[in-house]
Amino acid sequence: MTEARAIWADIEKIRAERPLVHNITNYVVMNTTANALLALGASPVMAHAAEEVEEMAVLASALVLNIGTLSGPWIEAMKSAARAARKKGIPIVLDPVGAGATRFRTAVALDLLAAAGPAIVRGNASEIRALASAERETKGVESRHGSEDALAAALDLGARFGSVVSVSGEVDLIVGSGPIARIANGHPMMPRVTGLGCTASALTGAFAAVNPSALRAAAHAMAVMGIAGEIAAERSAGPGSLQVNLIDALYALSENDIQTRLRMEWD
Amino acid sequence: MTEARAIWADIEKIRAERPLVHNITNYVVMNTTANALLALGASPVMAHAAEEVEEMAVLASALVLNIGTLSGPWIEAMKSAARAARKKGIPIVLDPVGAGATRFRTAVALDLLAAAGPAIVRGNASEIRALASAERETKGVESRHGSEDALAAALDLGARFGSVVSVSGEVDLIVGSGPIARIANGHPMMPRVTGLGCTASALTGAFAAVNPSALRAAAHAMAVMGIAGEIAAERSAGPGSLQVNLIDALYALSENDIQTRLRMEWD
Amino acid sequence: MTEARAIWADIEKIRAERPLVHNITNYVVMNTTANALLALGASPVMAHAAEEVEEMAVLASALVLNIGTLSGPWIEAMKSAARAARKKGIPIVLDPVGAGATRFRTAVALDLLAAAGPAIVRGNASEIRALASAERETKGVESRHGSEDALAAALDLGARFGSVVSVSGEVDLIVGSGPIARIANGHPMMPRVTGLGCTASALTGAFAAVNPSALRAAAHAMAVMGIAGEIAAERSAGPGSLQVNLIDALYALSENDIQTRLRMEWD
Repeated sequence: MTEARAIWADIEKIRAERPLVHNITNYVVMNTTANALLALGASPVMAHAAEEVEEMAVLASALVLNIGTLSGPWIEAMKSAARAARKKGIPIVLDPVGAGATRFRTAVALDLLAAAGPAIVRGNASEIRALASAERETKGVESRHGSEDALAAALDLGARFGSVVSVSGEVDLIVGSGPIARIANGHPMMPRVTGLGCTASALTGAFAAVNPSALRAAAHAMAVMGIAGEIAAERSAGPGSLQVNLIDALYALSENDIQTRLRMEWD
Repeated sequence: MTEARAIWADIEKIRAERPLVHNITNYVVMNTTANALLALGASPVMAHAAEEVEEMAVLASALVLNIGTLSGPWIEAMKSAARAARKKGIPIVLDPVGAGATRFRTAVALDLLAAAGPAIVRGNASEIRALASAERETKGVESRHGSEDALAAALDLGARFGSVVSVSGEVDLIVGSGPIARIANGHPMMPRVTGLGCTASALTGAFAAVNPSALRAAAHAMAVMGIAGEIAAERSAGPGSLQVNLIDALYALSENDIQTRLRMEWD
Repeated sequence: MTEARAIWADIEKIRAERPLVHNITNYVVMNTTANALLALGASPVMAHAAEEVEEMAVLASALVLNIGTLSGPWIEAMKSAARAARKKGIPIVLDPVGAGATRFRTAVALDLLAAAGPAIVRGNASEIRALASAERETKGVESRHGSEDALAAALDLGARFGSVVSVSGEVDLIVGSGPIARIANGHPMMPRVTGLGCTASALTGAFAAVNPSALRAAAHAMAVMGIAGEIAAERSAGPGSLQVNLIDALYALSENDIQTRLRMEWD
């Protein structure tokens, strides 16, 4: 099976099974990520109350934790949901938004990494570098580094926590215990839309719900995100319409789009 | 007066009076529902602080409570606002998002039903069935049932709490103490946009603000939602543009749109 | 240097320096304002946790406080962030959303005015009048007054707190200790999109980050907001597409757009 065929098989499974993806995520992107999951074919649910996160996580096929606008009670909810998810054996995706920007975010992200044991960590190069070295260099929540600069950090982090590490950038880098994937899909206008990294993390949750290989799930999600972003950007006059067209592109994605556009390499 | 004419009269009243609709709603849909209310002609306000919800509810012409992303303090705010709304005599709309998915949501929804005494409960078939029977069957926040499956549940719930029950689905079902309305407007792409049920609840608040019959208000809101959704879907390449075009369609809605598209039956 | 040329110089500086704008803002507009800042060329960050707001404010080049959906812990976070911002000497913009609607909002806005000492207060006429006189007249979060009605209030408020006061309306009014700017750009459909006032406040933060004159920064932001709104409205069938096209227009804004459209007067 070619890689494009394998990605398409995951999408068909998501569309058929409509896996429930439980998101405890930030306020900025809740609408966008829910719409992206629906457009792909998954069933999103957003729930953060201590009273229900464990029960919700147990209903779900994947759990996505995102620290973009965190605060104390949300961290506790993330830990409770993660405990339930681990017990049930569903994959957890952690997006350490802004790790490195403040000591609090770095500490919370490392704490969640240890407590939740995520199957996949998805961040930009600055975030992954900050978690590996606790160096402070993030400017806001955007990356100042190419993903390749984060290769050593991703390998270190992945080995330390037993997670696949998915680093988004001009070329995405997916690092596990085996081969490394590099994905060159995407469009330079994408970083001008808020929350597309968070959207990639949410889609990673959907792929992890249907593909038992965390490495493949992470790579497939980044490929689909990049390809849908390319298609959307070609039709967009700016980042406002890109955000809208990305949802449409995810909804209309065909096997041919993936066959003709995929730029993924393993080594 | 025909039904289409009566719906149009409500819209003209909303556009002229710009009723203030106080929403205590979930994070995912706040932007969308505020924009839908503005596009229809109403004045939305979102406020949830214990210190101001009573005062805000008293300024408003309708109160919409939505439990989509609830937590402890918000439940208390909803109850305070409901008390003030009841005292002033303005209609309350309750959207029990995800009732049935977790015990917490079902319990909170039933608690709010009893405490707030909403004029209208608006949910999907799974939610209404869960509230009537406390059976657990919701998958996430989406319905797995047609609205017709919820008829008995809606009648039961409505009788028990003295509320009109508005069940959204392929055919919407509006149940009160008198005749039952069925509305066949809408488009199959609508459930692929997050929060359109919540948007229907917000619009129900606007119609309830100008129409003293909760039954008519609920039916008119669902008809307008369905018609605007149809118009929007016909112009949309996917759910991203549908979300945008729905707002435009609500804004540009004409009496002729309603006359030519309305598919409502009473029995 | 003409005014249009001066505005363009600010935009070029924002695009080159990508100043970090720290927003503690309301749930309704977080996505929209983050996207507007990114489209203009700035770097938005949204963070409200007590544990990190001071550190985040110190990393930033401007701080924007917006009380649209406030609650107790957020007010404390705003004060902490403001203290750090003042210490570092970065400009603070305060948007007193809904001041006048409830006693709580008016009190919190006045409290923040005194505690934060914002360089710029940006509100609509009702909000500015409410803060100057504590009169209650806001209907929801929309203004019932033209900005000109708020001139005396703006002068009073500005003198009392040492702030520039930026009053949005059909004609925007920017009032400091010197000359007064009036900006006639904009489009009547803009108030039908939720959160465009909040977006104007966020953009004001970006201009204040690069222009040491709070008066000029506030005026330039309102001019850019109005011009982008005009361009967007000319392409929009309703407020849904206006929200999207406004982001595209901010992204694609050219010096020629400003030269040909600017309608700003000083007196």
